[in-house]
Amino acid sequence: MAAPSSNTCGLTERSIRERVPPLLTDLYQVTMAYAYWRTGRHQEPAVFELFFRNNPFGGGFTLFAGMQDCLLFLRSFHFTDEDVEFLRSVLPPATDPAFFQFLRGLDCSGVTLRAIPEGTVVFARVPLMEVAGPLAVVQLLETSLLCLVNYASLVCSNAARFRLAAGPKRKLLELGLRRAQGPDGGLTASRYTHIGGFDFTSNVQAGFQYGVPVAGTMAHSYVTSFTSLEEVLPKTLVAVNGDSTPVDIILLTKGWLSRVCELLGSQPGKIHEGELAAFLSYAIAYPQNFLPVIDSFSVSCSGLLNFCAVALALCELDYKPLGVRLDSGDLCRQSLEVRRVFRLCSKHFSVSAFDSLTIVGTNNITEQSMAELNEKENEIDVVGVGTHLVTCTQQPSLGCVYKVTQPLCSATETRAKVQSSLQTLHPRHKRLQEPDSYTVALSEKLHTLVTEIREGSSNNSNFLLAN
Amino acid sequence: MAAPSSNTCGLTERSIRERVPPLLTDLYQVTMAYAYWRTGRHQEPAVFELFFRNNPFGGGFTLFAGMQDCLLFLRSFHFTDEDVEFLRSVLPPATDPAFFQFLRGLDCSGVTLRAIPEGTVVFARVPLMEVAGPLAVVQLLETSLLCLVNYASLVCSNAARFRLAAGPKRKLLELGLRRAQGPDGGLTASRYTHIGGFDFTSNVQAGFQYGVPVAGTMAHSYVTSFTSLEEVLPKTLVAVNGDSTPVDIILLTKGWLSRVCELLGSQPGKIHEGELAAFLSYAIAYPQNFLPVIDSFSVSCSGLLNFCAVALALCELDYKPLGVRLDSGDLCRQSLEVRRVFRLCSKHFSVSAFDSLTIVGTNNITEQSMAELNEKENEIDVVGVGTHLVTCTQQPSLGCVYKVTQPLCSATETRAKVQSSLQTLHPRHKRLQEPDSYTVALSEKLHTLVTEIREGSSNNSNFLLAN
Repeated sequence: MAAPSSNTCGLTERSIRERVPPLLTDLYQVTMAYAYWRTGRHQEPAVFELFFRNNPFGGGFTLFAGMQDCLLFLRSFHFTDEDVEFLRSVLPPATDPAFFQFLRGLDCSGVTLRAIPEGTVVFARVPLMEVAGPLAVVQLLETSLLCLVNYASLVCSNAARFRLAAGPKRKLLELGLRRAQGPDGGLTASRYTHIGGFDFTSNVQAGFQYGVPVAGTMAHSYVTSFTSLEEVLPKTLVAVNGDSTPVDIILLTKGWLSRVCELLGSQPGKIHEGELAAFLSYAIAYPQNFLPVIDSFSVSCSGLLNFCAVALALCELDYKPLGVRLDSGDLCRQSLEVRRVFRLCSKHFSVSAFDSLTIVGTNNITEQSMAELNEKENEIDVVGVGTHLVTCTQQPSLGCVYKVTQPLCSATETRAKVQSSLQTLHPRHKRLQEPDSYTVALSEKLHTLVTEIREGSSNNSNFLLAN
Repeated sequence: MAAPSSNTCGLTERSIRERVPPLLTDLYQVTMAYAYWRTGRHQEPAVFELFFRNNPFGGGFTLFAGMQDCLLFLRSFHFTDEDVEFLRSVLPPATDPAFFQFLRGLDCSGVTLRAIPEGTVVFARVPLMEVAGPLAVVQLLETSLLCLVNYASLVCSNAARFRLAAGPKRKLLELGLRRAQGPDGGLTASRYTHIGGFDFTSNVQAGFQYGVPVAGTMAHSYVTSFTSLEEVLPKTLVAVNGDSTPVDIILLTKGWLSRVCELLGSQPGKIHEGELAAFLSYAIAYPQNFLPVIDSFSVSCSGLLNFCAVALALCELDYKPLGVRLDSGDLCRQSLEVRRVFRLCSKHFSVSAFDSLTIVGTNNITEQSMAELNEKENEIDVVGVGTHLVTCTQQPSLGCVYKVTQPLCSATETRAKVQSSLQTLHPRHKRLQEPDSYTVALSEKLHTLVTEIREGSSNNSNFLLAN
């Protein structure tokens, strides 16, 4: 079978059928559908609204997401023979066999979905989606729609909060795949945190499937897997421009390391050779994309010095190193020290590339620690967030609900309502020929309220616009 | 395309390829694999261990789960042409094209997985899985393996804690699908909470795919969709045994309702007719599976009376009603009142079926409120748990890590180690012909320790067995 094609617009109908099969629902939806069918009410028109009762995280807003998947789910919704046979095995033996024929023929051709556009700011108790159609069908859709909207909206809102906390300039990287509720949870997180304001994801499949920009360089395991410079292979690199003679990059780096140690007054003896070997190997593999993690051992005694030495060697060969990643300890304090050293090197060795190096910080970042980055002095350009972003630690569920909105009156009741409604009209409006028209005007109370609002609006127009 | 076949042993290799494609990984795994490949280290034997650092929820144990999916993932692991082309578009342009050929040919045939059996109690810092194979390959597996183990183990452990809190007798129902991190998160939750000790799930797909027993009857929306007894259709029911004459079940129920109201001194005027209509419709559809939710309006003034009336009518026709569900308020207090009324009916009307009715409680149950059920008097037989079970509110991530265990010595280093190791041997052990054998014995210190443990074991054998 061919793999699904790269599709930045999201999942196809076929793949959503596999991801959200119609059996992915609570059993009571099926038992209720049968009871509606049995009593002849299954085709009754019904309208359900999907909303939530409180903004998550104690916040003042929510972002609505997941609608596109809901639409694909509705389009693909149908029970296969195998689905129906399984339901037959689960429902009571006395269930009328004709019900299973009814299920087999079901689809959402009679269902209308009205929804707020994906990515819109929404508030509690406001309907996000209105699902109208035959009662039994819209009942069967409930759990799947809630499942598709709940987490997507929650994690998108969480990402938007992290973005607000970070401010508009700092770049944000999502790296929560390994901490999400399994593969699909991780993919959903990468997709909707990008929509919510993150710039990159570490999740390659999210890049493949949804076009989210991907980023990442190395883990500590890469650094610690090297022990000696003898492991560096190849040992040469060719300069970007000009001379094509391979340069002994190890020798070149060793030279720079001495100069850096001298500049900073550091002890070469404390430098970890394995770390230098790891950085060199990576730089030889990716001379234009050098961004190592520098705190596997000690930032100030080893990692920063090794980075500077390799980066200066790369600069000498006209490559442009990217920066460093800090993954532990006090990120703010360390970033200041790292930036100070970068500026010193830039000035002392006249390497302008060192003025624009990126410092990435990743260390169990919470919304609160993200907000603190705006209060504490630091030089962090990119922040990576994993666990607290994707698991929404502060509140791991949005709690959307799906409720019937119509009184669903019987014909008898509606017929009675027609009569009582007509009785409120004066006979002159009920004349069948040349009736008086009914004047619609504001009551005195409503008129006063509108006047007050108009007066208030001149002082507080933003409030009115926003509401 | 045919749907995947019902398979209680779990996912097939093909479906796991769709659920966990090899691109569902952090980009740095691929960049590191390239750097290893570039330096010629990709085939080096490597061993990674997967473990966690702290038991979740402040507890003393964890249950290991997810291993079976890991095994299927390893078996299905390979990059398609399309995967490789996407990686080519993401990695720096200077990446050696031969690396992509290498990726295209990769599989896990050289990888060995040693793991603790699924469902075993495990502890912090103990390796759960040991993944051995070529360095580049085992590196590429990290994120996916973590993703498959983390949530599975977390939610299985959470379920086990709920089970311990509930005690062995109470039945537990998982109903968290709509609150999980999307469809796959919900399915994983249903699967591993069953393994962790839950009896049923509301998730039909979990029944289909993993053979988990499914349960569920009706939601409030079903109850509130009825307004009048006129909506009840058909209006007759045939007794289980004997007379096949259809009985007017509405009339029969109305008679029982009067008697129940009289017995309990209740006001018939407070009874909600729509609720009675809903219960009747459901009972006619499922006369052997009658278990309505009875708190849509008022348990004591309406729901309980309506249940008793319909259930007594069913009993008169030799059907056996199942019970009721309480979904709000003080579950313990209400369950006592419900049971009191059941016993009263049983005695007064001589219906023994009322002695074995089930009371289901579902109302935002937490681990703490579950534990309180053992302290407060109550009559709840089955407890349904959703949000707090599947989102693991107390700690929504386990935090497994995947670390290299061997020093990964170079051949040169290992060669040197061979020599120094041989030097520790006395020449008589190194004789190539007829050497003295090396006696292995306990040191005095170890001997004392073993003796102490043996002595202790007679007083505290359980401790030793458990550890």
